[in-house]
Amino acid sequence: MSARQLAGSSFKESSSINPDFVKERTASSCDAKELAIIVGEETLHQRRKFVESLIKDNPHFNDWDRYHQDHTQIFEAAIRRHCEWVKIKQQNNLSVEEGNLIYSVFLNDLSFGIHDAMFVPTIRRLANDQQRSKWLPLAENYEILGSYAQTELGHGTYLNGLETTATFDQETQEFVLNTPTISSMKWWPGSLGVVVNHAVVLAQLIVNGQRIGPQAFLVQIRDRETHQPLPGCHPGDIGPKWGFNGATNGYLRLDHVRIPRDQMLSKYLEVTSSGQLVSHGNPKVTYGTMIEMRCNLVADSANLLNKAVTIAIRYSVARRQGTIDASQGEVQILDYQSQQDKLFPLLATSYCFSFVAQSLMQMYKSSESAIQQGDFSKLPELHALSCGLKALLGDVMSKGCNTCRFSCGGHGYMLASGLPWLYERGSVINTVEGEKSPIFLQTARSLVKILGNPQAANLSEGAFTQYLLRPVTLKWQPRVRGQVRNPDNVTGAFRHRAQRLVMRAADRVATLMKEGHSQARSWNESQVFLVQCAQAHVELYCVEVFFDKLSTLHDASKGNREALHRLALLFALHMIRTDTGDFSEDGFASREQLSWVNDEYFSLLKELRPDALSLVDGFDNSDFTLHSVLGCFDGNVYQRLYESTKLEPKNQKVVPDVFHKYLGPFMKGQSKL
Amino acid sequence: MSARQLAGSSFKESSSINPDFVKERTASSCDAKELAIIVGEETLHQRRKFVESLIKDNPHFNDWDRYHQDHTQIFEAAIRRHCEWVKIKQQNNLSVEEGNLIYSVFLNDLSFGIHDAMFVPTIRRLANDQQRSKWLPLAENYEILGSYAQTELGHGTYLNGLETTATFDQETQEFVLNTPTISSMKWWPGSLGVVVNHAVVLAQLIVNGQRIGPQAFLVQIRDRETHQPLPGCHPGDIGPKWGFNGATNGYLRLDHVRIPRDQMLSKYLEVTSSGQLVSHGNPKVTYGTMIEMRCNLVADSANLLNKAVTIAIRYSVARRQGTIDASQGEVQILDYQSQQDKLFPLLATSYCFSFVAQSLMQMYKSSESAIQQGDFSKLPELHALSCGLKALLGDVMSKGCNTCRFSCGGHGYMLASGLPWLYERGSVINTVEGEKSPIFLQTARSLVKILGNPQAANLSEGAFTQYLLRPVTLKWQPRVRGQVRNPDNVTGAFRHRAQRLVMRAADRVATLMKEGHSQARSWNESQVFLVQCAQAHVELYCVEVFFDKLSTLHDASKGNREALHRLALLFALHMIRTDTGDFSEDGFASREQLSWVNDEYFSLLKELRPDALSLVDGFDNSDFTLHSVLGCFDGNVYQRLYESTKLEPKNQKVVPDVFHKYLGPFMKGQSKL
Repeated sequence: MSARQLAGSSFKESSSINPDFVKERTASSCDAKELAIIVGEETLHQRRKFVESLIKDNPHFNDWDRYHQDHTQIFEAAIRRHCEWVKIKQQNNLSVEEGNLIYSVFLNDLSFGIHDAMFVPTIRRLANDQQRSKWLPLAENYEILGSYAQTELGHGTYLNGLETTATFDQETQEFVLNTPTISSMKWWPGSLGVVVNHAVVLAQLIVNGQRIGPQAFLVQIRDRETHQPLPGCHPGDIGPKWGFNGATNGYLRLDHVRIPRDQMLSKYLEVTSSGQLVSHGNPKVTYGTMIEMRCNLVADSANLLNKAVTIAIRYSVARRQGTIDASQGEVQILDYQSQQDKLFPLLATSYCFSFVAQSLMQMYKSSESAIQQGDFSKLPELHALSCGLKALLGDVMSKGCNTCRFSCGGHGYMLASGLPWLYERGSVINTVEGEKSPIFLQTARSLVKILGNPQAANLSEGAFTQYLLRPVTLKWQPRVRGQVRNPDNVTGAFRHRAQRLVMRAADRVATLMKEGHSQARSWNESQVFLVQCAQAHVELYCVEVFFDKLSTLHDASKGNREALHRLALLFALHMIRTDTGDFSEDGFASREQLSWVNDEYFSLLKELRPDALSLVDGFDNSDFTLHSVLGCFDGNVYQRLYESTKLEPKNQKVVPDVFHKYLGPFMKGQSKL
Repeated sequence: MSARQLAGSSFKESSSINPDFVKERTASSCDAKELAIIVGEETLHQRRKFVESLIKDNPHFNDWDRYHQDHTQIFEAAIRRHCEWVKIKQQNNLSVEEGNLIYSVFLNDLSFGIHDAMFVPTIRRLANDQQRSKWLPLAENYEILGSYAQTELGHGTYLNGLETTATFDQETQEFVLNTPTISSMKWWPGSLGVVVNHAVVLAQLIVNGQRIGPQAFLVQIRDRETHQPLPGCHPGDIGPKWGFNGATNGYLRLDHVRIPRDQMLSKYLEVTSSGQLVSHGNPKVTYGTMIEMRCNLVADSANLLNKAVTIAIRYSVARRQGTIDASQGEVQILDYQSQQDKLFPLLATSYCFSFVAQSLMQMYKSSESAIQQGDFSKLPELHALSCGLKALLGDVMSKGCNTCRFSCGGHGYMLASGLPWLYERGSVINTVEGEKSPIFLQTARSLVKILGNPQAANLSEGAFTQYLLRPVTLKWQPRVRGQVRNPDNVTGAFRHRAQRLVMRAADRVATLMKEGHSQARSWNESQVFLVQCAQAHVELYCVEVFFDKLSTLHDASKGNREALHRLALLFALHMIRTDTGDFSEDGFASREQLSWVNDEYFSLLKELRPDALSLVDGFDNSDFTLHSVLGCFDGNVYQRLYESTKLEPKNQKVVPDVFHKYLGPFMKGQSKL
């Protein structure tokens, strides 16, 4: 049975819906269709569905056999698929933004995503007019394929540490690119090894013997006709990874490779023919690339987590195991308090993260248009927030995917569950552009700076960080149990905690410096506190965004408004429960108040149970996108699990070859011993 | 370049050691060789090294290409390897216990491990003498291969829920085995699909129309000569999983399959020819199987975690990235406080878990020999402890492997790092024999029972749970900062917390029952509290075992004793920091005491830094066992990373086939648009 047949026979047309699913959907007071528009934003939601409609019946995208493919098949399928996707984009005149929506509706690899995501945008941003007019049509039209080569085997996000050099040779009017050591090899860039024929290479510019700093160079690495590596270029593949094996990653050694002077991307810095350096414009705008990347990673985090939660909650509705009251037979595992305690906070988090991703993207767009007017004032806050949110969401999402995985027991360990796949992809987000500690530290740096010198920070009226400068509240407000459900009280708790932890971190750095340590040393000895305060800061942001979003939903149905309100509370109270010490060690929240938090938390779990299935339906993940036998809309998990085995190569013969080759002779030999 | 050559050329004989490694090993006051004996137990340590020596130069075990193999290659290699292993065991007359040591020195799959681990032991435990004399020689000698088929597609650890039936047919003196529904198919048993020809099948025994309960039946499923499935048997493979794809897992549908009456394993229960049920002996001894399995999983957890920690710490010593003081160049990333905060608690945890695994195994052995004398009194405590420890260690280890993975940045995402592999294997431990919540609940059940009726529990003098019955201490002892390093004070804090949380959970259940809820319902509504108290109980056990172990090390070197003492403190103080609320919400630990805990924690990180490398050397993981380019003894990470790419199939041709097949025509086509 082929993948196509399987998809046609049962994955797509399931005649019957799991009766538990019908019952729960009917009984829920939530409206999943309305939720889909709230959580996905109306226009975006429609566009996404449109992109999905372009691919969902295309055989290149209909890959129910993906979990059975070996690395070579995965690699080739990703190339064929990407070529097909380019054709579809061109036939439908999709904009760049529309084209990128594919990454949220189709979670298998396209081969040369780096070309779209980094190579073309970098030329757009860093090339001067002359360079753009030469290279952009070639690249946008896929006549050449390119990678973006920054990281090296021994060097990651610390740009000053890059070892690759680009030395200006005035005589020949060329740059000589060189990777002098094994640790200086370019390592990790997408598609660099065997797929692309060009790359933007980050290298230390050296002019007249002086090291100027990292700049971007456009280097052709393979012949366009024969694909043979050009002289001095030694590209290769870095080997298998945990996931993303369709989107290959490569290395590149450069042995004194010469490129013409006009292939240093020169919008902001130019080396003249006589070796003079000439600056143009404000290079700060290049920060935009990294901030945009982080905004996308935040959106990806939200997107992956809601898929994992959808699978886990649907499975927990379908699965019956063990009893609560023996007389009532086996129960749905979502009825266990411990299962709700695992999954409902993640459900709440998924909604929260979707709203946070929207909010951050709006902030980015508004900053970008201000920058067009020459106003860079929003950049520092945006930088700090996008760092912290990338770190937080990446971390919570990746751990959350894992929780979803093991909450499905053994079946979650099968690739067909889709959960290992989501976790592997999630781990990438948690890793690229810096693991959480260094980027939380960037957020912390800006917070401590504001506290140390509010004048210099020059915060605008509406700046989120304004709260740092307000007087500290000493006691938490709630006087009776019910008041811990008051949004102002909840956000107040997070504001207090963030403010206190930022102050504490700043104090620690200051104290160590007073004791005679250097600033750098004091900073390092305070890292754990700094990371903690950065996290508290962005968690406050998340809580505020969630409640702010609720206050805009006047027109939504009552059922949805109530359920979302419960989720916002659950999201916040769960964090208070988890980090009790943060809220209480200074005497802010009393023991009694914390017991109210506990009580309300458990009430909320119960209140949310009847709507859980509809709330995950609200993420509007199609079976096509989820690609999980446990998470389909119809809830027929066992039938799908069984049918998925028909694609397994080992099941294609009744007696496998290994019996004749090994097992038979082995057992026979043993019986003759 | 083949895997063999690569192993020969550089993985095994590295001429130079990373200078940072030489420096740190020289400067450390720890003696890694002595540590290896402390942590591995001397005899066991030697035996393990012996087993390693039998395989490490054997090509079947020298699989540096494992990360590049596809599923079919993995599957076949595991079969060939297992056949080879049987030969080695027989040639060297290894005992069963020695044979099992392979699983701790060689972490790739053997194919039919289930045969050794479950099929043969089950026959040994559950067969009567007649059955043993017929089946055991066949099975022990590998003339037949068997699986152990308990779980079903719709049913896991809840035995009463199993749907497969075995109906006694008195007329033919046979049992009729049947899986009536899709959810009743056997699902997950190792090797069941295509490898084995026999299985022990758990099924609901039905005699004279009466359902008796689950029993074990010996079923032949494939012909020994042809390997064709026997009539009514429909075995197959369940498909790819996150890991363990060499050790395949299968399904089995049984359509009214008839087996002779003497193939119900009848040591404890027999069906006579006239359909009478006859019991023999005490079936409680069968609990031993599950307890032994959990003891092994606890040991496996300790074993996997120390490997992940070894890789991460060695890499963090080798890797330089960014600066602390810019004037001093790039620093080893292990010098960052945030990196120490990630890895040192896991280093401490690894040592603790090794000691805990030893202690639990001793307890198991002493209980087993008591049982031989008819004394079952140690069983309840052992059952509760082994459940809780399996849950705790599985969870902490699996999360810890992940922390180690991302602490290595991007390189940790490469399969060649060995970390994804460890994580995938760790996740299995976290999943098999029940995910953490249900098994923590088993521990909690016994704790609450003891509290409710100490008399009935009849605890022996030395029982660990005795502490539950002592008076509660209200205030934590330390009066000055240094006193939080006192072992009695530390264990006192954990004892108080465990005692309080057990009481709180018991109170909650009691209160809900008083409010009129059924016991079952009250229990479910208290699950989160019950899980929490069970965890606190086993964490106390871990802290006590660690300090107890230290008190036996009079003869160890001063350097090792001091370092282990620091690790024990770090292990405990880190948990207090993490769960601050647990220790303070009732006023037990004061705010000032908690600040001392923080201060001492950060001091310990600094004190441990110089010994970190030697402390991971102390786990004595060979390069062969670790199988990681990041974690080798010589610290040459970049060279090994680069060399590992020579095994990558995509690097075997300078111009890959995909260029001619897809990429070339694609780009050419685009340029003609």
